[in-house]
Amino acid sequence: MSTLRIGLAGLGRMGRIHADNLAGRCSTARLGVVFDADPAVAREAGERYGVPWTVSYEELLAHPATEAVAVATPTGAHAPMTVAAARAGRDVFCEKPIALDRATTVETVEEVRRAGMLLQVGFHRRFDPDWAAVAERIRAGELGEVALFRSSLRDMASPPASFLAGSGGFFRDVTVHDLDVARWLVGEVVEVTAHGAAVSDPEGFAAVGDVDTAVVVLRFASGALGVIDNSRASGYGYECSTEVMGSRATARIDNPYRRGYEWRTPGLTSRDLVADFQERYPLAYAAELDAFARAVLDRSPVRVSGEDALAAFDLAEAADESWRTGRTVAVRYTGTGYARASEVSA
Amino acid sequence: MSTLRIGLAGLGRMGRIHADNLAGRCSTARLGVVFDADPAVAREAGERYGVPWTVSYEELLAHPATEAVAVATPTGAHAPMTVAAARAGRDVFCEKPIALDRATTVETVEEVRRAGMLLQVGFHRRFDPDWAAVAERIRAGELGEVALFRSSLRDMASPPASFLAGSGGFFRDVTVHDLDVARWLVGEVVEVTAHGAAVSDPEGFAAVGDVDTAVVVLRFASGALGVIDNSRASGYGYECSTEVMGSRATARIDNPYRRGYEWRTPGLTSRDLVADFQERYPLAYAAELDAFARAVLDRSPVRVSGEDALAAFDLAEAADESWRTGRTVAVRYTGTGYARASEVSA
Amino acid sequence: MSTLRIGLAGLGRMGRIHADNLAGRCSTARLGVVFDADPAVAREAGERYGVPWTVSYEELLAHPATEAVAVATPTGAHAPMTVAAARAGRDVFCEKPIALDRATTVETVEEVRRAGMLLQVGFHRRFDPDWAAVAERIRAGELGEVALFRSSLRDMASPPASFLAGSGGFFRDVTVHDLDVARWLVGEVVEVTAHGAAVSDPEGFAAVGDVDTAVVVLRFASGALGVIDNSRASGYGYECSTEVMGSRATARIDNPYRRGYEWRTPGLTSRDLVADFQERYPLAYAAELDAFARAVLDRSPVRVSGEDALAAFDLAEAADESWRTGRTVAVRYTGTGYARASEVSA
Amino acid sequence: MSTLRIGLAGLGRMGRIHADNLAGRCSTARLGVVFDADPAVAREAGERYGVPWTVSYEELLAHPATEAVAVATPTGAHAPMTVAAARAGRDVFCEKPIALDRATTVETVEEVRRAGMLLQVGFHRRFDPDWAAVAERIRAGELGEVALFRSSLRDMASPPASFLAGSGGFFRDVTVHDLDVARWLVGEVVEVTAHGAAVSDPEGFAAVGDVDTAVVVLRFASGALGVIDNSRASGYGYECSTEVMGSRATARIDNPYRRGYEWRTPGLTSRDLVADFQERYPLAYAAELDAFARAVLDRSPVRVSGEDALAAFDLAEAADESWRTGRTVAVRYTGTGYARASEVSA
Repeated sequence: MSTLRIGLAGLGRMGRIHADNLAGRCSTARLGVVFDADPAVAREAGERYGVPWTVSYEELLAHPATEAVAVATPTGAHAPMTVAAARAGRDVFCEKPIALDRATTVETVEEVRRAGMLLQVGFHRRFDPDWAAVAERIRAGELGEVALFRSSLRDMASPPASFLAGSGGFFRDVTVHDLDVARWLVGEVVEVTAHGAAVSDPEGFAAVGDVDTAVVVLRFASGALGVIDNSRASGYGYECSTEVMGSRATARIDNPYRRGYEWRTPGLTSRDLVADFQERYPLAYAAELDAFARAVLDRSPVRVSGEDALAAFDLAEAADESWRTGRTVAVRYTGTGYARASEVSA
Repeated sequence: MSTLRIGLAGLGRMGRIHADNLAGRCSTARLGVVFDADPAVAREAGERYGVPWTVSYEELLAHPATEAVAVATPTGAHAPMTVAAARAGRDVFCEKPIALDRATTVETVEEVRRAGMLLQVGFHRRFDPDWAAVAERIRAGELGEVALFRSSLRDMASPPASFLAGSGGFFRDVTVHDLDVARWLVGEVVEVTAHGAAVSDPEGFAAVGDVDTAVVVLRFASGALGVIDNSRASGYGYECSTEVMGSRATARIDNPYRRGYEWRTPGLTSRDLVADFQERYPLAYAAELDAFARAVLDRSPVRVSGEDALAAFDLAEAADESWRTGRTVAVRYTGTGYARASEVSA
Repeated sequence: MSTLRIGLAGLGRMGRIHADNLAGRCSTARLGVVFDADPAVAREAGERYGVPWTVSYEELLAHPATEAVAVATPTGAHAPMTVAAARAGRDVFCEKPIALDRATTVETVEEVRRAGMLLQVGFHRRFDPDWAAVAERIRAGELGEVALFRSSLRDMASPPASFLAGSGGFFRDVTVHDLDVARWLVGEVVEVTAHGAAVSDPEGFAAVGDVDTAVVVLRFASGALGVIDNSRASGYGYECSTEVMGSRATARIDNPYRRGYEWRTPGLTSRDLVADFQERYPLAYAAELDAFARAVLDRSPVRVSGEDALAAFDLAEAADESWRTGRTVAVRYTGTGYARASEVSA
Repeated sequence: MSTLRIGLAGLGRMGRIHADNLAGRCSTARLGVVFDADPAVAREAGERYGVPWTVSYEELLAHPATEAVAVATPTGAHAPMTVAAARAGRDVFCEKPIALDRATTVETVEEVRRAGMLLQVGFHRRFDPDWAAVAERIRAGELGEVALFRSSLRDMASPPASFLAGSGGFFRDVTVHDLDVARWLVGEVVEVTAHGAAVSDPEGFAAVGDVDTAVVVLRFASGALGVIDNSRASGYGYECSTEVMGSRATARIDNPYRRGYEWRTPGLTSRDLVADFQERYPLAYAAELDAFARAVLDRSPVRVSGEDALAAFDLAEAADESWRTGRTVAVRYTGTGYARASEVSA
């Protein structure tokens, strides 16, 4: 069984998750080299995982243990690093989002394509065993025609204001995950209507022109309806659950409990809830890098392409516009992202 | 413990449920007399329950065992029978909807008020033990500020076309239940946006200008968002579940299973699902008539007034309009139903 | 639909449950007359339910509204009242236990049989919809050969010492319910081994020579094993759950929650537990009286006979002896209760 | 963070699980060298994991990458290999059971102790996050006094006859896991009563003098009761669930589902069940080796000692004897395994 050594750029929160998985849970992908702009961080990680480390991205790209690249740096560096890696002849796994604006996203996707390299984007949910199993049963026709798609993604508590400022806004940062899943499980979208509110901290969110709660309604080309609810501040825990109602069956992916036991006291039984995405997705992050490594080794298509990232980005933009204008935004999938349809019909 | 004898008008599906409950599960309300326009039906019920029966509504109203009236006839007769009962000095429990148009609804509510009688409308969910318990905890402040309201109401399979024709349309017939619950649990609404689709039988629903699937988004005066999804044809069973996410706690009312056991076969465990509203609400229909009887005996306010019915009707009309126009409808609660707000803001 | 009027003797806790059901939830059985030795209690009930009342059991038996009798008096009166009713030509529903000693139990069963009347005993669990559904599927062969039977019956907190003194002991009062279910779902028993402990209140239970916790192991004639755990003081709530593991399927009857909603607070979700048998069995007590009435009207066999009560009593006695001696007790079903088998084999 | 390189002996089913975990999920323990008597197996594993391989156990012990040893060979080699490793100055993790007879077990534990090395035995359940969390809350007093312990361990289908012949019998092979958990969560045992049956394949199990189904009752020194049910052939899946009922709280560890989604079809919802111990314990096997490595690096006591293994073995022997004789076996914990108490009291 051949494996692929990954040069990992960025050792922040997400970079650390990838490093742990590459050093441990992954079976096809392995950690090759680590890069971080901060020498202390880079060195500590190199020593911890027993791999070479560098503070030069060029050095990472040139290193023989970098058979492919994973980019998990701050968002602003995603696009240039992805392009640089592709030009250096490396396939790239890039954390989402590729960029916070459409032009850069499109350009990055095109540059990688021109370089003839693979680009996989970090929509991890596609690799979670539950989601993957449901997707497969839908593909196999077991669910029939989809009538309704429903998905909830909620964080327990709002991130700091500093994070929000560079997040790209609620729809591009949070909703984009459910939008990707909607396309993946149901198909292309023709209408997006979004509603937002700032409930947990009205002043804070108003200050950055953003919301902490949203409901987004989708109409699919198939005629099915979709509804997404998102929150920055559920209060009780992290939630990521989805339902797909079809003519032959309905799949309902639960939010799991943190622990597999009940604790009973007089008149009451209670269970622990998961607190964040790391607890919610113990296997998905490892699986996405293994799938990337598999695609690289086999020269087969990746399962979440740059085009997928662009499409989800475009839907998030449509949601953002719908929220700002109070109107439904009609869209049309072009093969490379979404264009605006000329008119909206109910 | 004094009890109240009810004169029950109408012995169709809903009338029969009320008759069974009045004869059995209710503790304060009792069956007094039964009326149905069909003599065979009226006689059979009278004999089964051991109470007087009649084919004349006037006779029902005049009968000494009619201490109050419950109207469960076909929809067209709800309003005139309610008004006749009130004029005859009887308090009235009326099945929903009061009428399929706003003018008749308003007039009926006003006539009963003028007659000084009580009018309770059949939004049974307010009397289900789970919903009532959650409402009480919300009232007590245990949930904090509501951020998000989410509710699903879905039937297993579409009713016959003949029923649809006289149903008032999807939003007035189905969504109206969730709209009432939204007002009850969260408060008044300022915006309604509705999306509909005909998925299970596109031709059939197009023929009657109706939908079988809908998503309705609400914005509450408090700033909270709400989302309702409804279906005529879930395929798997009846579903009625609600979630209210607040700043201090989140309540999630489940759809119960039909039976309290698991059946395990190799690799799989399965449970029975409830098929319809009768299985879903074993206690609510009895509780609403007991609550009505209690209000009548104590001359205290009913828990779902004609004004509540009118408000839910108005929201259903706004949803219907939003669906037809593809626009958000801004509304303002007036104390007697909803008026249109002058302009829509996102 | 013909109904049967029941003369109800005894208006204590169980008597009251039966009265409420006969006045309400039952469809075939109805309340005819009530008897209680205490005139205030009898009168109050008569007025509440709108039926004749009496302080003379003879009068109850002779009353035209007593088409059959239900005995729910204190245990000591069960046997004589059952015999008196049968001699008066009345079919009898008798609360469990028939008596606290075997001789009286046998005699009572025989007297009723001699009088040619029906006797049904109050093992309500056989009439609960979940248990009945599982039993039916087992009968239909869906479960295959039973390998293991497991049942838990637990009260939340110990009853007062005064109750314990007249209870017949833990095995005859509590375990007897699971022993009846074991016979019903799996078949006859050939070995009983019991283990008891006094954990919640060691001194209190030692004082009455009783236990508050027990594990009883059964070996069935079929070769299957069974295990029952019982407690007077679970602390968390009432529990009554059963599992039957078979060669083709396994059925698991859950203990339901008190309410159908989850309440989520930071990091935790909780649900209410049922507190006692009334909350656990909302439908079984009504169903057993309807089934009795049906049997009386149709002159068909009752579903829990005096012989069934005797068999469960004998198994409880065997459990009691096993607990006292520390030995397995081998038994043999005779058609009329259990005899001791001559020797025990492992 | 220092890590410990493990020399792994044996690459069968369990050896493979350990190798995968050491190569991946473990954070403190790492794979150092692999040994298997079969050169093809050893070579393949060495290449797959990128570590040295050998067919000589002596070479494994002497290899510099063998900082400690894990023994996962066929049972007969557990004891001699453990002793050899200890004599070679290596701490040992040994799969359960140490041996199929008491004398060898005692001798092995003593030899390792004499050599001054650590010995940890493979009772993985102690390292599962759910079990560990419950144990911690019990230790912290949150559960109060234990009244009842209940545990189920069931395989889906019987292993081949060849396996059974060398398994040591049902109680030593299967029940021993629940016996270890009983001691760990509740404390020492004073009585063991076992009941066995051969239900799934009566002839097959009779031929090897063994059972496929058992119920074992424990009485603890504290006065609490315990009950274990075990099966080789549940039919529906793998089951490992435990309940501990205490005076202040009750903990119930569920058997998890295989996947986190429900699949709904008309009238029915279903979920996948776990099939075997690998699916049931995704984290426990990695955690036990990390805990072992931690103990080795810190020279701190292991969490499951040879004495623990001996104690569980002795209880399994007592269960086996109880099953064969039909009598309760009274035992007394000596600090080094269990002795028979002179007499049995109920």
